[in-house]
Amino acid sequence: MVIMESCVPPGFRFHPTDEELVGYYLRKKVASQKIDLDVIRDVDLYLIEPWDLQEHCRIGCDDEQSDWYFFSYKDRKYPTGTRTNRATMTGFWKATGRDKAVRERSRLIGMRKTLVFYKGRAPNGHKTDWIVHEYRLENHDNAPPQARYHLTSLN
Amino acid sequence: MVIMESCVPPGFRFHPTDEELVGYYLRKKVASQKIDLDVIRDVDLYLIEPWDLQEHCRIGCDDEQSDWYFFSYKDRKYPTGTRTNRATMTGFWKATGRDKAVRERSRLIGMRKTLVFYKGRAPNGHKTDWIVHEYRLENHDNAPPQARYHLTSLN
Repeated sequence: MVIMESCVPPGFRFHPTDEELVGYYLRKKVASQKIDLDVIRDVDLYLIEPWDLQEHCRIGCDDEQSDWYFFSYKDRKYPTGTRTNRATMTGFWKATGRDKAVRERSRLIGMRKTLVFYKGRAPNGHKTDWIVHEYRLENHDNAPPQARYHLTSLN
Repeated sequence: MVIMESCVPPGFRFHPTDEELVGYYLRKKVASQKIDLDVIRDVDLYLIEPWDLQEHCRIGCDDEQSDWYFFSYKDRKYPTGTRTNRATMTGFWKATGRDKAVRERSRLIGMRKTLVFYKGRAPNGHKTDWIVHEYRLENHDNAPPQARYHLTSLN
C-alpha cells in the first residue's frame, strides 16, 4: 500500500461539493482520466467494516479531516443480476430516504444515495450511526446505465 | 493588481486552524519567508470598508468561500504612540471579549483578538455584524513586542 502525501499547502482541506465530486472526480474516474491530485482512494466497501474505512482514506496527514471519500467498484450479488450486494462481514448498508439529484448549473449529472449501516443480517440487524453517501453518474448518452464506480463519502 | 489563480485541485478549500494561521502563515510573513501558495493578500484594513474587503481577498475562483483572510500592516495613530488606529472612512473596529491564546501543541505561539465594526465615530457608533479575528505572534525571544503584520480573518 502506498502512503499518499498531501500536496496542498497548510490550511487547505478537502471539502468538495456534490457537484465537484460527481462532475470532476467521479466523471474522470469512470472515464479513466487523470485526476489532478489523486486524493480519493479505491476501496472495496464490502470487504471493510465502516469503522476501519477511515484509515484507508486519510488525505495526507490532515488531522482535521471530518469526512472521508473513496471510490468503490459496484459489486453485484449475482453475476447476472442487478441486485447490489451491500453486505460486509458483520453487517450491511441499507438505503434510506430518497436519492438526491446532483446538478451542474441546472443540468442533472448524477444522483446521491444515502445508506445507513446495520449490524447483523437483513432483514434484521441493528441500526448504527455510520452513514455513507453513494454518488453515481447520470448518463445522458447511450452509455450502459451502471457506472463501474461509485464515489462514496463517509461521515 | 494581480488576479491570483487557484493552484489547488477541485474540492479543496482554505479552512485553516488558528494554529496553521499563526504557526505557518503569519510566522512566515513576519520572517519574510516564502509561503508555499500565496493565498493571503496584503490589505490595508483601514483604507477599505468591511463590505469591500471580500473582493480583495478572494482565493482563486472559489465561490464556496465563507471566510476571508488577509495580512495587514499594523498602523499607529501617532508615529510615536502605541495606540492602534482602527478607523476607516465610515467607521471603526472595536475589540470585543478577551483575546484567545493560539497554541502549537501546548506552546503559546500567538493571540487572537476579535473586533466588531461600528459605523460612525468612537466613542459613539452603530454596531454592525462585521467581525474580524486579528492574529498576532507571541514572541519568545527578545524580538520587539509588536509584529509588523497582523493576519486577519473576516466572517
